[in-house]
Order: sequence, then structure tokens, then C-alpha cells
Amino acid sequence: MSYLKTIAPIKYEGENSTNPLAFRWYDKDRVVLGKRMEDHLRFAACYWHTFCWNGFDVFGYDGSFERPWHHMADPMEAARAKAEVAFDFFQKLGVPYYCFHDRDVAPEGATPRESVDRLRRMVDVLGEHQQRTGMKVLWGTANLFSHRRFMSGAATNPDPEIFAMAALQVKEAMDATKKLSGENYVMWGGREGYETLINTDMKRELAQLGRFLSMAVEHKHKIGLEGPILIEPKPREPTKHQYDFDVATVFGFLKQYGLEKEVKVNIEANHATLAGHSFEHEIVTALTLGIFGSLDMNRGDMQCGWDTDQFPNNIPETALAMYYILQAGGFTTGGLNFDAKVRRQSIDAEDLFIGHIGGMDVAARALLIAEKMIQDGGHARAVAERYAGWDAQLGKDIHAGKFDLAALAQRTLDRNTDVAPRSGKQEALENWFNRFV
Amino acid sequence: MSYLKTIAPIKYEGENSTNPLAFRWYDKDRVVLGKRMEDHLRFAACYWHTFCWNGFDVFGYDGSFERPWHHMADPMEAARAKAEVAFDFFQKLGVPYYCFHDRDVAPEGATPRESVDRLRRMVDVLGEHQQRTGMKVLWGTANLFSHRRFMSGAATNPDPEIFAMAALQVKEAMDATKKLSGENYVMWGGREGYETLINTDMKRELAQLGRFLSMAVEHKHKIGLEGPILIEPKPREPTKHQYDFDVATVFGFLKQYGLEKEVKVNIEANHATLAGHSFEHEIVTALTLGIFGSLDMNRGDMQCGWDTDQFPNNIPETALAMYYILQAGGFTTGGLNFDAKVRRQSIDAEDLFIGHIGGMDVAARALLIAEKMIQDGGHARAVAERYAGWDAQLGKDIHAGKFDLAALAQRTLDRNTDVAPRSGKQEALENWFNRFV
Amino acid sequence: MSYLKTIAPIKYEGENSTNPLAFRWYDKDRVVLGKRMEDHLRFAACYWHTFCWNGFDVFGYDGSFERPWHHMADPMEAARAKAEVAFDFFQKLGVPYYCFHDRDVAPEGATPRESVDRLRRMVDVLGEHQQRTGMKVLWGTANLFSHRRFMSGAATNPDPEIFAMAALQVKEAMDATKKLSGENYVMWGGREGYETLINTDMKRELAQLGRFLSMAVEHKHKIGLEGPILIEPKPREPTKHQYDFDVATVFGFLKQYGLEKEVKVNIEANHATLAGHSFEHEIVTALTLGIFGSLDMNRGDMQCGWDTDQFPNNIPETALAMYYILQAGGFTTGGLNFDAKVRRQSIDAEDLFIGHIGGMDVAARALLIAEKMIQDGGHARAVAERYAGWDAQLGKDIHAGKFDLAALAQRTLDRNTDVAPRSGKQEALENWFNRFV
Amino acid sequence: MSYLKTIAPIKYEGENSTNPLAFRWYDKDRVVLGKRMEDHLRFAACYWHTFCWNGFDVFGYDGSFERPWHHMADPMEAARAKAEVAFDFFQKLGVPYYCFHDRDVAPEGATPRESVDRLRRMVDVLGEHQQRTGMKVLWGTANLFSHRRFMSGAATNPDPEIFAMAALQVKEAMDATKKLSGENYVMWGGREGYETLINTDMKRELAQLGRFLSMAVEHKHKIGLEGPILIEPKPREPTKHQYDFDVATVFGFLKQYGLEKEVKVNIEANHATLAGHSFEHEIVTALTLGIFGSLDMNRGDMQCGWDTDQFPNNIPETALAMYYILQAGGFTTGGLNFDAKVRRQSIDAEDLFIGHIGGMDVAARALLIAEKMIQDGGHARAVAERYAGWDAQLGKDIHAGKFDLAALAQRTLDRNTDVAPRSGKQEALENWFNRFV
Repeated sequence: MSYLKTIAPIKYEGENSTNPLAFRWYDKDRVVLGKRMEDHLRFAACYWHTFCWNGFDVFGYDGSFERPWHHMADPMEAARAKAEVAFDFFQKLGVPYYCFHDRDVAPEGATPRESVDRLRRMVDVLGEHQQRTGMKVLWGTANLFSHRRFMSGAATNPDPEIFAMAALQVKEAMDATKKLSGENYVMWGGREGYETLINTDMKRELAQLGRFLSMAVEHKHKIGLEGPILIEPKPREPTKHQYDFDVATVFGFLKQYGLEKEVKVNIEANHATLAGHSFEHEIVTALTLGIFGSLDMNRGDMQCGWDTDQFPNNIPETALAMYYILQAGGFTTGGLNFDAKVRRQSIDAEDLFIGHIGGMDVAARALLIAEKMIQDGGHARAVAERYAGWDAQLGKDIHAGKFDLAALAQRTLDRNTDVAPRSGKQEALENWFNRFV
Repeated sequence: MSYLKTIAPIKYEGENSTNPLAFRWYDKDRVVLGKRMEDHLRFAACYWHTFCWNGFDVFGYDGSFERPWHHMADPMEAARAKAEVAFDFFQKLGVPYYCFHDRDVAPEGATPRESVDRLRRMVDVLGEHQQRTGMKVLWGTANLFSHRRFMSGAATNPDPEIFAMAALQVKEAMDATKKLSGENYVMWGGREGYETLINTDMKRELAQLGRFLSMAVEHKHKIGLEGPILIEPKPREPTKHQYDFDVATVFGFLKQYGLEKEVKVNIEANHATLAGHSFEHEIVTALTLGIFGSLDMNRGDMQCGWDTDQFPNNIPETALAMYYILQAGGFTTGGLNFDAKVRRQSIDAEDLFIGHIGGMDVAARALLIAEKMIQDGGHARAVAERYAGWDAQLGKDIHAGKFDLAALAQRTLDRNTDVAPRSGKQEALENWFNRFV
Repeated sequence: MSYLKTIAPIKYEGENSTNPLAFRWYDKDRVVLGKRMEDHLRFAACYWHTFCWNGFDVFGYDGSFERPWHHMADPMEAARAKAEVAFDFFQKLGVPYYCFHDRDVAPEGATPRESVDRLRRMVDVLGEHQQRTGMKVLWGTANLFSHRRFMSGAATNPDPEIFAMAALQVKEAMDATKKLSGENYVMWGGREGYETLINTDMKRELAQLGRFLSMAVEHKHKIGLEGPILIEPKPREPTKHQYDFDVATVFGFLKQYGLEKEVKVNIEANHATLAGHSFEHEIVTALTLGIFGSLDMNRGDMQCGWDTDQFPNNIPETALAMYYILQAGGFTTGGLNFDAKVRRQSIDAEDLFIGHIGGMDVAARALLIAEKMIQDGGHARAVAERYAGWDAQLGKDIHAGKFDLAALAQRTLDRNTDVAPRSGKQEALENWFNRFV
Repeated sequence: MSYLKTIAPIKYEGENSTNPLAFRWYDKDRVVLGKRMEDHLRFAACYWHTFCWNGFDVFGYDGSFERPWHHMADPMEAARAKAEVAFDFFQKLGVPYYCFHDRDVAPEGATPRESVDRLRRMVDVLGEHQQRTGMKVLWGTANLFSHRRFMSGAATNPDPEIFAMAALQVKEAMDATKKLSGENYVMWGGREGYETLINTDMKRELAQLGRFLSMAVEHKHKIGLEGPILIEPKPREPTKHQYDFDVATVFGFLKQYGLEKEVKVNIEANHATLAGHSFEHEIVTALTLGIFGSLDMNRGDMQCGWDTDQFPNNIPETALAMYYILQAGGFTTGGLNFDAKVRRQSIDAEDLFIGHIGGMDVAARALLIAEKMIQDGGHARAVAERYAGWDAQLGKDIHAGKFDLAALAQRTLDRNTDVAPRSGKQEALENWFNRFV
């Protein structure tokens, strides 16, 4: 496709390359802990930021990018042109997966039927591109937040007719994901939250959300979509409070509706920091609670209080995240989707590649660092030793219920001595970690 | 006692009083919605900030207050002197309740037995003061965070021997609360969290915390402590991440251990804001999830990223919080504990009264505003109308499971028309609210 | 004009009115401290949020409002239609002033000349409306941030040709403001800042900004624009770091270019909180430094890290801000501009009125509270007493330079006694304040 | 000294060492860009966190460290014991410099004279240790915030007698710094700020602060202290608002008192982030404004809203900071002081070394990365090209004042064409940077 015609496919050129359009670390066939880099990282590019966004922001409605398909008169022709560029991009970049919303790939129609028809037609187009290129879908999802009808939420809307409009979209998006052999289906909160408590009935809205999710889970089984549904936690933006605030909140919600075995989480770095957590906190929480699914890879700006969706570029931070995932066995159906966008000043076509290359190289380097951490084993040993008492008699007895509170208190009274604390060795572990960066 | 001897009991003098040592709004026998103000608000003063804290902060170790009992050589004599002042204060202020940690009222001993012995002796002293004055305990709790042995947590400590030390303290503090007829028992996270993930096994620590809480619940039943156990959510401080991050997180934790019927939450305004929530958000979330218990009343400073524990002084904000509680039926075993401290520059004895008077007047005024809001009914009506569709056929059918996703999608396709959104009327409701302030 | 035809002019109906389309507190002719309310508050409505914004946000490009002029094919016809509605709105609301950007009132043309021509034509239209209605301009400004050419800044752009484009716009906007008898001219940072330091030469950019401001000041004198130029501080958004971060930063910048007598500040509540300050902090800082000009009245959401530009609704907070301004003598050329927007869910035409009515009533009430605070004088007296030592001998001698450091140290050594601190009485003053709310 | 007797002097062992008590990157004699690492980095250890702090925090008054000198009965004996350990530590660690407050090295006495006497005696002790070991003082300062007399500020205190107490301390601390050949003198805000505006006269307080600083500058010249006075910006903590909020605020303050040539800034990483800036922002701002002095090297925790003073451990972030400093010529009188503390759980004596070793290795690595960035020159070239227009005719003419606003506007009108923006290339520069990490 002409838009990217000056860009050659991106190759791995090794650490010493100074070519900005080459990988220096991502060498997809390199084996790391017994698996190819590509199979570990399962990279996906996203449709929305990369092909739909025109560079607009709150202070610049008209955008800055001026991609050709942003100005085409016929929306379906624009959709096809966009798809062609997208697959050209995916292939040249060398990511195995992509992710999309229904409205990213096919324009909203004048009626529900026309919207469905357009989506189905574009799914055929995408299917052909997939056939031709070998690209795969990491996950699909439905955009339930851009249209004004969803201004007060979709599943959590005060009007059940809008819930019903959302049901149509999700049903179709799930069917499309199935048809395109997507490996997961994502539900991101969109406007499921509130702008102000003062006009909101939280009890009703949460019940609606629970009902909607249950219906989606049931539909997944019905159509045989194999991968999990993933909820993507985010604390705020667009609404002041989003119900899927963070991983722990989503877990409580899933427990309430008995869906904690059916649904997992898609964790985004920038959403984690907006919720007051580190990225690795959210990852480890999800792993601990058994709901870890996939990652939206990006970074925020810690000086800005909104979702900046920048490409990850901090190597040690990314390495820590990767380490915790690898230590827990790595991805299964999930992967590493770049929910990241080039800055609105990065208006050159090549900037789209440069942003992704940077992110992929950082992730590849993080993987190699994590490999060394695991091979060294120093961290795992230190943590195991720190908690060793819980594998000894007293620890086991406590967990086995051999003491009630009074009995354990009596044991302490009988011993009648204080217990000396031991150093937490935080700095020693931080220095150990830096040995591998 | 002598420390407060210049202060006369605080009286209600009405709105026009200019006496800084009088109530202008808190008129305890005034009936609001069928109940006395005192019975609605169930005020408690806290032992720790008011009598134990010497005004120290991170940049001023030696404090600023110089209360007489802070400098007594014999710790038990100091404890008795402090108790005497405390009850003098409670009486003069006219709060019906107080709250305490074990270590607030009795000093740590050289051995576990001495600590237990000291606590039991002081419980007798407190009991006598209660007998004499009619004061009641809103809740008791155990300080599992000040002593260096708890530097890495109590229940979540890597060493089970420290878990056992904590068990003794909690058992004794629960027994003390029972003996003093306390109406609730609080578990605040203290150092149950982590300073750094890198030395932490979150899975183990959460399992330990679950075990500990289960043991406490069992002990509560065993000793016949009637009120609920209350967990107090807080996101960070003293640790970087506290496991009881916010109400939603606590709910998920309770569900995981099947304790959501046994344990409720004690919500603190300043903890809410540190977690990125409004106070009323946390209240409404707890009410929605069925775990609302009690309040720690204070305010933070939105420009400061730590727990400032100031007395509440914003009337409309407090009124909103009160409204949601009243609307849901008000407190049962809970109440309104001032977990608030005068500023470290407020070194006069009278400042202790002035701080509490301000907070109590604000709460009283909030109650009167909430009464008017409920009597007007405008908000309740507006919200009911907004969600009316959910009480009509389609809404009921959706909740009743009459549609699966495909059927509901088909209904939308069949109708084939868009749905117009309706104004959320946020500003109208905000203006309505200001009519009552 | 038909869009607002169902809305009657807004009247003052008094505190007991339940009419959502009436003032309950803003009674423009009521005299407060010797001046009419209208003359104290000098309210302005803004063109951009109220008439230009279509309700779009980052997650909803197409907006939610669907005002008729948003969809007109001919941009100049739309501009005239918008102007007609705007003046209808101003009159019915009863604000004496409005504020505008050049691009709010006249659409960008295909060439610089066409843009200038369109602006001049629309200035004539506005002039006629002003003539007809008596409306006045509080301030005008130029939009140097929406067009993609300004994506890297205007005055601080790396390309001097874009600086020159900005010069044309500012020159024309100043001329327009003069022609429409505007009482101030505002320069808001727009994209004068950086997205990333890594591509930025801060030294050059600050020098460019200084040059630009100097040229604007010179032009002001040249054309006889009488009121001051006002810089509007904002810390971030749209750029990660805006050079006009806060009042103190702007002051340093003005001092560096010797413009502190020529330029004042337009302080926005929500910008203050984004910079980590309270609104009253920024006001008092500007008053202290002698650069207080005008206010952009709104509120942020303390749980959200971006500029929400909501209508003010917290009465005590607004009262404090008003008190500090009144205490310092009130506004001169400045006023109270509602840089505030109804929520994107508030799609009814009447919501535009309701938002402004709420804000105006809150400001009126704040004024009345401030009046009582000033009449009581308790705060002013307490502060004067607190610092009384500085009006006594030692304080005067220190300021008069009677001691150098060594001499003052020697005096302390000679006295050889400690100095006892006195209570800061924060709670007492907070309670005093609440007497007037 | 016995406390550290088990620790051998720390040696450079190279990148492959696994010894936690060795440097892997800090090789003090290695030449980087023509200068020894030690001469570039000018490391200092601080007295307060390392030797004075006992591990206490707001929730644990008694601390966790239990260093022997924390429990000695005679304060001067404790001070001498502490000094001995301190110099043993400095020597074994291999830092050339240390920093101190007056009260860190000598205890407050019962009277001003006793305090002075104690300080002078301890200065002699420190002088002997310096003589013996070759250690040097990077900077000294006075603690004007811990004693309760300073609870409402020192120079900004409402009571001039407390200003006078502060004058004695600063005079003596400056004399001590001179006597010990300190290379800078630091003034950190301490409690120079306010807890609440409501009891504060900002105008008076800023004037007092200006007077105090002017007196200190004069004294510096009088006693021949050669290095600069450094103000250390911090936005809040201990007070809600500190007057020395950030670098830009300090610059404005210095300009107001004409001290911008006399006084520079000591920038702390964690203070920068608390003020809403990146560390490199504050560094580049100070370099741009000509007031860059020295660094307090540490890191905060972006999830915590207070000063955590952790050792730096993020290599790329530190490298960026180092690059900007090196690019501007490196330190002159300033250096790199670790205003950092081991976590309160890091209770082992060796943890003090491990924390510093980690920080020094990170800084050394950052220096080596910065060296490569400078040698490559890619960043400097890209930035120069981006602004090239400002070195061409139009740019020069604008700065030279060849155009007034109207003339430049006319030039734009005459050309009558738009200007196309160019990509900001943020991602390309970020990827370039990562080549050197």
C-alpha cells in the first residue's frame, strides 16, 4: 500500500546497528528458556491508535496526522484502505498478532442493521488479509463508548434499551472474533462507571454489569470461542470512576457473580499507574488471584494524570514485569499488545514503525534480562528463605488450623520471649536485580 | 484532671454563639428524622491522636505538645494519668464513645506476659472510668505496627513467630473490647502490605492474612463479642502498598475467604482520598456491597499525598456523606469516630476541644442538611426516574434472564432504530443539593 | 434565536425559589460592602466551552451535543448563527461580559489572509451584537494550539516561521479586543511547553517566549489597549510541561524579562489544583507578588488528573477565594470568567443555563460570606496579632538592616534563653470561618 | 569502630562480581571524558539518614535500627561515638565527601550558649577525623525544623525572636562549614512554608525569608566561605506548602531579592517528583536559568505522595540526569550527595553499605552511558537541527528586534501561505537513548 511504500520490512540487525528502522534486540527465533522469542512475547499491534486516531486531542480537534484514509468520502472505502495499510504495517513490522474494536475496522451505519452488515463485510476483508499474510487476532472487542448513545454507559446505562444496543454490538464482535480465530475476547470498561455519584444508582449499575458479563460468558460457550474473556481494569477516564478500577476490584466483582473461573484480566501498564499501583503490582496480584490473562503494553507519564499510552521505554521496569510473568510460566492465550500511540507530533509514517520497534526491543531486552534472573535464581532463593518459617512446623500448623486464636496466644504467652525481626534486604535485592540490567 | 482544669464542659449555645468552646450546631437531644442527634451520630473520640501523640512528625522527632504524661518516668503511672485526662476530656466534650488500641492505653512490657498483665490492669482502670462516667467503647483494636518486631507486618510477616505474637495481642485486645462492652472490633492493616514487591511473596502473605482474619472471626464468636469485626481500608502508608487498599479490594478478599457476612468496613475519609476515591464513593460502595460498618471521620489535604488526619471542616462534602448513610438507614453498630488530630502547631490544651467541636458541629450541620435533602426527596425521585426503564418490562426481562445475548441482539436488530440518550442532569442535581447547604 | 427559545430570561427569585432556571443568591443590584454584586463579581461567560465544544472527548470523537450550528455546511454562516445564539444566551443569563478566542468566533481560513478577513468580519458582527445588547468583552485571546501547525508550540516552536504565524494571530486578536473594547488581553500557554525534554531546547524556547511576550506588550501600548495582558498559568495539558506552570513560575519569568509591571495573571481554579496548589494559594501568591489580574472560575475533580473545567459548586472553598480577593480590594480590570463546561452528558439546551446559574449563585453566596468575614474582622485581627512582633522593635530592626547575621546571633547568645512557641490556632480559625458559611 | 568491624573496605571488583559488598561499576580512577570518575561524581554521604535516624516513622515512634549510639546516656559521648562510626563508614565506603546539619553532629544544649559550645567542640572532633582520613565536607547546613520552637518556621516565623534563634544557628553552621573547608552551604526550607493559609501572612513571611537569605549571603562574604549558598527546593513536607516549591519558584524569589548571582540550587530527585516534575526537568531548568549547583541523589516512589528518600536504582533515569549535567560541563562546587536512607526494615549494619554501593554503581553506570551519548552526539545534533531556523535569518531577526508584532504579522500576511509542521521524533530519540543503556 502506497502510504508505507518507502518502508522496507523491519529486520533484526543486532545490538550494534544504528539503523532506526531495524531491531537491535528482538530476534524472533532466538530461543530463551526453551522457547522462541516470538512465542514468548506474542506481540500484537492495535488498530485504534495506529490507524484510526488522527492525532486529535482535547486541545486540537482536527488532529495532526492527515493519513490519506482519514479524509476519504466513502466510509467503507476508507475502511478497506485502512485495512490494507494495517496489514502492510503488521507484515513489515513482523508482529504475529493484531487487536481491534468493531468500530475500528468497520464504520457505524445509519441503523443497527447497516452497522452489523458493515462489520460482517469488513470481517470478510480482514479474513482475506489474514489468509494472505498469516496474521492472527490476539483479541477483538466492541467499542461501546464513542457513540453519543453510550455517553452514560453501555451495560450500566440507565436505559435498558441502550443495554440492548450494546448487546447487539458485543454479540457481533464476539462472533467476528470467533470467525477470525481470535485467541481472547476483551471487555474494557469504556464508560461503565460514573461521572458523578449524584445521578447514579451504583447498586443497579453493578447488577446490570454483572448481568451483561454473565450473558457474554454464556455466549462465548455457545459459539465455541475458546480463549477467555478478559476484563481490562482502569480506574478512571473517560468516566471519573470506572467500575473495573483495578485487578483487585475486578476480582471481587467476578467472585460476586461466580465468574472468577471464566474471566481473566488484560492488564495495562498505564491503567495500573493511574490506579495508584505499579505495573508489576497488578501483574502479581492477578497471578496471585489466578486471573492473569494478557497485557496491554505501554507506559504512562508519571507527571501526567491521564492515560498517555506511550510506548514502553524503561528497560528495568519492563524487565521486572517480564520476570514476574516468566516466573509464573509465561503467557498462555494472552500476549503483549501495544496499546500505545506515537505522540501527536510524530507525524511521519516511519514514526509508527519507530514507536513499535522501540517497544519491541525494550520487551525483548526485558525478556533476556528476565531469563538471566531466572537462571541465576538469586531472587527466588532469597524470597524462599525469607518465608522459610512458613514451611516449617509452626507455619504449617497455623495454616492447618491446629491453633485457634486463643491457643496460639497461649503458646506465645508460654514462650514469653520477644521475636527479633530480620532485615528485609530491599537494597540488596535491588542491587542484585541491577546486575542483570 | 488538672491538665484540662481551665476548660468547662462544652455546651450547645446555638448558631449565634461566638464562644469557641461551645457547640453552635451539635444539640445532642435535637430530634432529626425521629432520632436524637446523639443517637444518629454516635460520636467517638480516639485515644491515640488525642492523648498519645506528642506532636512528633518525620522532621521533628521530639514533638511539640509536651503534655505532662508524656514525660513521666513510670509508664504505668503515665498510663493512669493519661486515662484520667482522657475521661475528663470525653466528659467535658460530651461524646458518648471512645476508641483505643491496646498500646494506647497500656504500655508494652518487657515480655509478652508483662504486656498482657499491663493491658489487663489498665482495662480495669478504664472499666472504672466507664462506670463512673457512662462512657462507652465504640471499638477497640490492637497496635500491630509500632513495635519494631512488626516492621515487616504482623499477620503477613515472613516469620510465623511474629504472626503468633500478633495473635496474642489481638486475642487480648478482643477480650478487652468484650470486657469493656465495645460495640465493634477493628482490624486496621497496620503494616500488612509491602514496602517492595521484590522481597515479598504476595500469595503467601494474603493466605496468612486470610488465616488470621478467620481466626479472629472464630474468636469473636467464641467470646461472644457481639458487634462486627471491621476492616479499615487504606491504600498505602505506612507500607507502600497495603493489602486492604480500598472497600472494593476488601470485599474481594472477604469473598475469597467466605467472610463477607462476618466482617464489615470502617471507612476513613482520608484513606478514601489516598486511594483515589471520594469519601462518598467508599461509603456508597460499602453500602452497595453490604459491608458498611462505621466511619473514621476526618479529612485529608488534597495537596498532600499522605494521611493528614485533619478534623472535617467542609460542610457540603460532609453533608453528602451523611446523606448517603441516612438514606440507607443510618448507623447500626457503627458510629462516627474522630480519627483526627489537631495540627502539631496547635499546642494549647483547648485546641483539643476546638478541633473536636469544629468536627462535631460540621457533622451536626451535615445531618441537618441531609435531613432536608431526604425530606425534599428531589434527588431520590430524579434517580428513580432516570433508571425507570429497569423497572419496566425490558429491564425486568433482562435481569430475569429472559434473553440470552443473541436473543437480545436479535431484538435490537428487529427494532432497527437508534436510541436517543437523555441528559444526565449533573449540574441540575448539584444545584439542587446546594439549596440545602 | 430559536435554539434557546424555550428559555426565559433568568431572574433572581430568592433563596426559597425551587425554580432551577432562577437565581437564588445572585441579585445583581444588591449592595455588598458598598458596591453592587454585579460590579464586584464582573461575571463573564466563555465562548469556547459553551458554544464551540460539541461534547467530544478523547473517547468520543463525535461529541454528544448536536447543536444546530455544529453541522452547518458554510463555516461563516455557522459562525454567525453561533454568535446569535451566544448573545441570546448572554442576555438571558444576565452576565455583563464574555470572553473569546479568535477561532471561537471566526473559522480558520485556507490562507492567512482569509483567516484575518474572516475574523475582521466576525468582529464587526460581534460589535453589532454588543451595540444591540450592551454586552462587553472581559478579555480576548488567540487560539495558538488547535491547528496542527502549532503542535510543537507557537512562540516556542522550533520553527521561527510558526512563531511568525502566531504573531499574525496575536496581533489580530489584540486588535479585535481593542476594537470590541475588551478590558484585558489573555495569553494562555496553549502548547508552549514540551512533550518531552529529549527533543527540546528549553533555553531557546524560554527566550522565544520572552521575546514574544515583549512584542505583545509593546503592541498593546502601540494600539492603546488599556487593560493589562494576563498570562494564565497551567502546569500541564496539553503538553506534559507547560512553561507557565503556576503563579510563582510566571512571576520569575516576568522578572527575567522585566515585565512584572506590565503583565498580570489570570488564575484558574482547576489549573491551580493541577499544579499542586489550592485555588486560594494561587490567588494569595499573585496578590503578594503584585500580579493578580483575573479569575477563570471553575473547579477540577480532585480524583482526576486532568482539567475537568466543572462549574464551581463548593460554597466554602469559593468563599475563601472570594474573601482573599475582597480583602485585597477586589477586582480592578479583572473579573470572574466561567471557564467551565457542562458535562458531556448534559445535552439539553437548558443545561447550559443551569450550569452557569449554579456557578453564579455559588459565587454570589461566596461574596456574601466574605462580606460577613470582613465585617466580623476576626481573621484579620488574629493574623495581625500573630505577627505583632514584627511591628515591634526587634522585627523592625531586622527588616531595617540594623543587625547583620553575626550581630543578631550575638544578641541571641547574650540573651541565652529559649523562645516558647505559640499555638498556630488553625482549628480555631477554621471554626471561625465556618461560622459564616 | 566496632559497629562496622565486620565490614572490609569496599573495592571495585568489576561487572562480573557477585559480591554484594563490592562495586561493580564505580571505579574511581577510571577516566571518563578526561576526568576521573571520582572527580566527576563527587559523591557525598549524609550524616542524618545514615547515622542519626533510628528507623522511626509516623507509625513506629521507637524506630527499628537500634544502633549503639542511639541509646547512650550522655549526648556528647553519643555524638563522639557516632562521629567515629561515621568516619569509619565514609572511609570504608570510599566517598570523598560528607554533608551534615549542625544538630546531626552535636546535640542541642539546654541554652543557646551550650548548643553553640557543643557544636564548636564537635567541629573540632570532625576536623580531627577529617585530618586523619582526608574526608571533605561537600556542604553543611543548620537544622531549623526539628526543635518545637521552629514548629511555625524559622526565618518565616511569626515571632522575630525565633528568627533571631535561627540566625544564631545559621551563623554558627556557616562558621563550622568554613572551618571544615566545606565547599558549599545549603539552606533547605525546613518549615519555611505554611500548614494553612488561614493563619498565615504570606507577604510578611516571604519578606522575612528574603531578609534572612540576604543576611546569610552577606555573612558568607564576610567570613570568606567560598562556595555558593544553595537553596534546596521542595514543594511540601513537612509543611503543606513550602515556599521553595521548585527551581522556577526559587529563581523568581532570587530575582526579587537580587540574589540570583549569589545563590544556586541543590536539586533533589524526590523533591522534583513531589513538585510534579521529573528530576531532569529540574536540572535542565536550573541549568537554563543559570542557578544549577548540586544534587541530592535519591529516588521517590511514584505511588507514594511523600519523600521516601530511597537510593537511586533506575539506570536509564539516572543516565538522563547525568547526561544533561555532563552536557552542560558537569559539577563545579557541587556534587552528588546521597540524601537517601535504607528502608526501616534494612536493619543490618551492612545494609548501610549495600544501599550506598547500589546508588554509587547506578551513578557510575549513568556516567558511562552519558559519556557514550556525548561521544555519539546524535541527540545534540538532532536538537540543533530541529531549531536550525532560529540560527538562520528570520530567527536572528526576531531575536534582534528587527520586527515588532505588527511588522512580523505583516510579513506573514504578505507571504500568505501556511507552514507545515515537522515530526517531533520523540520515539526516535527515545530509541536512540536506549542504544546506550
